Formats: sequence, C-alpha cells, structure tokens
Amino acid sequence: MVLTLYGYPISTCSKRVAVVLHEKQVPFKFVTIDLATGEQKAPVHLEKHPFGETPYIVDDDGFVLYESRAIARYIEEKYAGQGTTLIPRDLKAKGLFEQAVSIETANFDPYASKAAQEKISKPAMTGLAPDEAYFESQIKELAKNLDVYDKILSKQKYLAGDEITLADLFHLPYAEALPYTGTKVIEERPNVARWLSDLRARPSWQAVKDGVSGTA
Amino acid sequence: MVLTLYGYPISTCSKRVAVVLHEKQVPFKFVTIDLATGEQKAPVHLEKHPFGETPYIVDDDGFVLYESRAIARYIEEKYAGQGTTLIPRDLKAKGLFEQAVSIETANFDPYASKAAQEKISKPAMTGLAPDEAYFESQIKELAKNLDVYDKILSKQKYLAGDEITLADLFHLPYAEALPYTGTKVIEERPNVARWLSDLRARPSWQAVKDGVSGTA
Repeated sequence: MVLTLYGYPISTCSKRVAVVLHEKQVPFKFVTIDLATGEQKAPVHLEKHPFGETPYIVDDDGFVLYESRAIARYIEEKYAGQGTTLIPRDLKAKGLFEQAVSIETANFDPYASKAAQEKISKPAMTGLAPDEAYFESQIKELAKNLDVYDKILSKQKYLAGDEITLADLFHLPYAEALPYTGTKVIEERPNVARWLSDLRARPSWQAVKDGVSGTA
Repeated sequence: MVLTLYGYPISTCSKRVAVVLHEKQVPFKFVTIDLATGEQKAPVHLEKHPFGETPYIVDDDGFVLYESRAIARYIEEKYAGQGTTLIPRDLKAKGLFEQAVSIETANFDPYASKAAQEKISKPAMTGLAPDEAYFESQIKELAKNLDVYDKILSKQKYLAGDEITLADLFHLPYAEALPYTGTKVIEERPNVARWLSDLRARPSWQAVKDGVSGTA
C-alpha cells in the first residue's frame, strides 16, 4: 500500500501537496478527480472531503486527510527523517515558521488566488471575460504586501529565515500562475523575484509544475 | 520580565491571542496600539511588525512575533506543560488538527471577517452605510460552509475531534461578532450553535470578549 493523492493534475492545491511529497521523497499514487465535470461533489468523494473539494489523501493505512497545507504538515511530520526538513524544530525558529505560514494565507494567497482565478480560471471554465477592475484591485493589494516581502527577503534567503520551509513552498502554485495574468508584481521586486526563481528551480517543482502524476 | 502583547483591546486578532494566553495561564502585559489613529503604521511598530498591523508580542527575552495564529501556536508550544493542551501530540490527531486549522482560514474567516467588517467596522470607522448586497454574498458563502461544519460537529464535539484545540478558539472573535450583523447563520445550525455556545462559555473567552487587558 502506498499513499494516494486524489486531485486534479493542474490544480494549484494538488501541486502544493505534490511538491512536498517530492521534497520528502515519498512515493505516491495519483488519482484524478475531474474538477471540470464537478466529480469532487460525488458522494464517494464527499465522504472523504465533506466540503466537496480537492485534494485529499488516503494514506497507506487508510487515514484520510484533506486541506493541502494540513496534508503537507502531516507528510513532513510522518517523514521527518527523510528528504528536506521543512518545519524547523527549535521553538523560536518554529515560531518564525508559523509567522511565515500565516503571512502566506493572510497576505499572499487571498489576492494571488483571486487575481489568477479572475484572469485565467474564469475565462477558461466559463468563457466569460475577466473583470479587469476586480483583477487590478487584487493586484494592488498584493503589490502592497509584496513590498513588505521584498524587505523581509532582502535580509534573509527564505520567508522564515535562511532555510527553506513549507511556508515558501506553499506560495509556489499561485506564484507560478501570476505571470500568466500579465502582471509584473513579482519581477518588479528583486528579492521576491530571486526567492521565487530559486524555489521554481527546485527539482520538486519541476516535477509537478506542468501537472501532477504519481510516482509509485 | 513578562510577555507583552501589543494590540487593540477590541480587535478580533488581539482577542484571538489573549484567549489563548488565558487558556495557557500565561500572565501578560497589554500595550494598546490605537488602530483608530493608525498608530500601527508608526516606525516603532513597523520595526516589529513590517506589515503595519496588530497584534504582535515581545516575549520576556525580547523575542518578537506577529500573526495571531502563529503567536497562539508559539505560546502553546512554549507552555506545553501548563493550562489547556491546545495542539494534539499524536501524528494523526495532529493531522486532523491541522485540517481544522486550515478549514478555519479557508472556509470561515474570509467570509465571517468580510461580513463583520462590512456591517460593523466600516460604518463605525467611516460613517458609510454597509453594502447590503456584498454583505449578503459573504453570508451566503459562509452559510454553505457552516452546513458542512454542522455535519462535522454532529459527529464530534470540536472541529478536530472530541478535544478542544486552537482550531476551535481561532473562530471565536468573528463568531462572537456575527450575531451583531443581524445574521442567524449560527443559531440556525444546531451543532454549530452548541459548539460555539460551549466555546463562548469558557472563562478564557469571558475574560477577553469585551476587551483585552493585561494580567501581569
């Protein structure tokens, strides 16, 4: 039995889990749930993920878990001794890690995800034109926050210090999507650009960026 | 030296930290940063919290940390042996805890906070009337998610299982604010109502709900 990841190959949240599985060198099966047809709302999946979303995992012993960031933490903890260490052990370093994790969900994801959804997913899924004013309002908020990221990243290599953590990897799926919206919020900020280019170059991201597939 | 919490007495995020300090029986000083005058953007505070927000802590040894949920986790870890245990130790229980934490930031906070800000903070701070259509759109999304909460809470006492965790406490500040917007999304769902009423009754919440003040 191996861990099975249920998701959609090009979904940002599925990539968020897959990149961590690669960093931790954990082999996994991948089962596609077709978000385009709404398969995630089928009873067999709702039983595993009551919010009717993806991804979720079924671990080798049957343990079920959803929410991409929670799965990533579980994988890091279960396989603490292998692959890249992605959560610091020391009390204060861990505090700064949790601060960085919280910055991602509060200051990056809400704006980056809405901008990418408006400009990329909405036209692709519905054929409707993006609402440019709404898109710009999200980019404006994101830009303000990335100014602070740029200051933080001028003093340290990664968001929680000089070592990579889950907090950095959590940004990758939407950071990768942003340039396709036409915005330059990342490349205009040298330290943010350097940080993301470093993350993007990792073999783990190269393995999943164009679509997740299983390794077991 | 004691831990100092810098925040605003009636701020939801300051209450989120303070309720945890009470649960963990950690004495703290409280220093008010006046959000009404924008004091959080003063250089002396920006040096501690580069995003120019509150709350942040300065611990007894000078260690600085911001982001309310990160501070809560740091307090839990530093004082693991005292007060209520708020993060499970077992791998799977911890996985389910992280899932519940992520549900709060993904499925509750974005809608509850925007609804409360539109209906309560905006009129109070700007004198402008709330945008009722926007408020209703947030409540509609929240209601859909609380339907799932109600199912989860029909099978277990708290969001991560039968023991209280940080994931439950993280909901309290905005859950307490919601009834003041006129919505009945909570009381219409019996298991959600029971869960929140149980959380609200805790001495820790009673101590901070009307405004945070120091205990040291």
